[in-house]
Amino acid sequence: MPLSASFVLRVPYGATDQMGVVYYANYLNWFEMGRTEFCRKYGMPYVNWEEKGVFMPVVEVRCRYKHPARYDDLIRIDTYLKEVKPYSLSFEFKVYRDSDDMFLAEGFTKHGFCDKRGKLLKKPKPFYDKLICLLQQ
Amino acid sequence: MPLSASFVLRVPYGATDQMGVVYYANYLNWFEMGRTEFCRKYGMPYVNWEEKGVFMPVVEVRCRYKHPARYDDLIRIDTYLKEVKPYSLSFEFKVYRDSDDMFLAEGFTKHGFCDKRGKLLKKPKPFYDKLICLLQQ
Amino acid sequence: MPLSASFVLRVPYGATDQMGVVYYANYLNWFEMGRTEFCRKYGMPYVNWEEKGVFMPVVEVRCRYKHPARYDDLIRIDTYLKEVKPYSLSFEFKVYRDSDDMFLAEGFTKHGFCDKRGKLLKKPKPFYDKLICLLQQ
Amino acid sequence: MPLSASFVLRVPYGATDQMGVVYYANYLNWFEMGRTEFCRKYGMPYVNWEEKGVFMPVVEVRCRYKHPARYDDLIRIDTYLKEVKPYSLSFEFKVYRDSDDMFLAEGFTKHGFCDKRGKLLKKPKPFYDKLICLLQQ
Repeated sequence: MPLSASFVLRVPYGATDQMGVVYYANYLNWFEMGRTEFCRKYGMPYVNWEEKGVFMPVVEVRCRYKHPARYDDLIRIDTYLKEVKPYSLSFEFKVYRDSDDMFLAEGFTKHGFCDKRGKLLKKPKPFYDKLICLLQQ
Repeated sequence: MPLSASFVLRVPYGATDQMGVVYYANYLNWFEMGRTEFCRKYGMPYVNWEEKGVFMPVVEVRCRYKHPARYDDLIRIDTYLKEVKPYSLSFEFKVYRDSDDMFLAEGFTKHGFCDKRGKLLKKPKPFYDKLICLLQQ
Repeated sequence: MPLSASFVLRVPYGATDQMGVVYYANYLNWFEMGRTEFCRKYGMPYVNWEEKGVFMPVVEVRCRYKHPARYDDLIRIDTYLKEVKPYSLSFEFKVYRDSDDMFLAEGFTKHGFCDKRGKLLKKPKPFYDKLICLLQQ
Repeated sequence: MPLSASFVLRVPYGATDQMGVVYYANYLNWFEMGRTEFCRKYGMPYVNWEEKGVFMPVVEVRCRYKHPARYDDLIRIDTYLKEVKPYSLSFEFKVYRDSDDMFLAEGFTKHGFCDKRGKLLKKPKPFYDKLICLLQQ
């Protein structure tokens, strides 16, 4: 079973638009909260990455929206580590309305391992080895 | 040649993050500005859609990030009408740094035709017919 | 002692800017989360307001920034009900870094009581009476 | 007559909320666009400030909302240089709906002169002298 981490948030008013539902770009912010939670849960908070000079810019994102989220809904983002490669890693996300487990959206992000200037890093230590271990659990 | 519309904006400070480049969710806001410009250019401003009870919620989005955008860059979003189906339409986007035409990102959004409550609408008039005409030009 | 409610959140990456700290507009989103929590805590969730046709648009905001918030900080927003008038109410906010109670910012928002079209409402029931009771506790 | 600069933008969909009008935090993003335009117009683009190690974090903001802005409105932000002090400067803003000059909001921001680490700078060259000259025009 793939490793995952859950993050719960309450939809703020500012995330809605005049359609009365959450504006689509906000899900990407939620994916990022999910990734942050994943990294923390498995002992490598993303703040440590940047402190050690390893950055994780997004190179690709996808999202499918199934059912709208609304103001004041409790939302749960389940984040899965999908793949680790020498120069990149990718996550998958599933977004649920927490009250009734209604499936709202699913997404994917792929990230490069980079230094502060955006230059690719190969298998950055110690994070790469740790991620490989996690995948093998 | 597919129909397209261009929209230019200057990257605001608030769109950057601590990596010193534009945060990835902002591109989805730019895609929306591109769609708005496309609809206006071809004689059917999106405000008119909603006035007539036709809404266009996003059901899918994809974006590939090639090169970062930075604060104060002039950015050009080229929006293309990709496909029109009875219940949906889709757009493609290409994002450039306007000063030197550096290719920054490309994206895709798919939208359902819906009423205010989110129920699917089939070939909503007069927009569907107009879109089909545009595609045949 | 004035009534208050606390709300804690973790600073997301997207809230930072290239100065490496939280972009100033995000505090207004946090104030709103604080107000939402206040209303819920005292038995009148803001979703109920809108369901009953009472809206609370912001007519004034102020914020003083004392110390920057950073990515991954746990932030606590303390929200105080400041004043209730026939046509308006106002809140005060204090923002702290939760780990060491460092005082980060303080703010104020004033809101009109309005109907859906933005027309002012006088002492909207049942919320106005409830707010007055709260203030007298 | 005080120096000013105007900036025009079209309200994006993502700036609205479920009240059907622009969410209040967006005005702070617009103020920043106004400041950027002001600095550029008077020959000292803010990108140059940061290149020379001078940062301008916001220490105070105020906004009064008079009339709502809506999706697709053309908005004009007039930015005025209000005051320059050894360690700070402040701006005022007036926001109009461009089509009919309807007055929508007015605001104020105060900024410290700081280095990259947030330490106050006194009369940072060459910007401070230039600002003083501008005020005396």
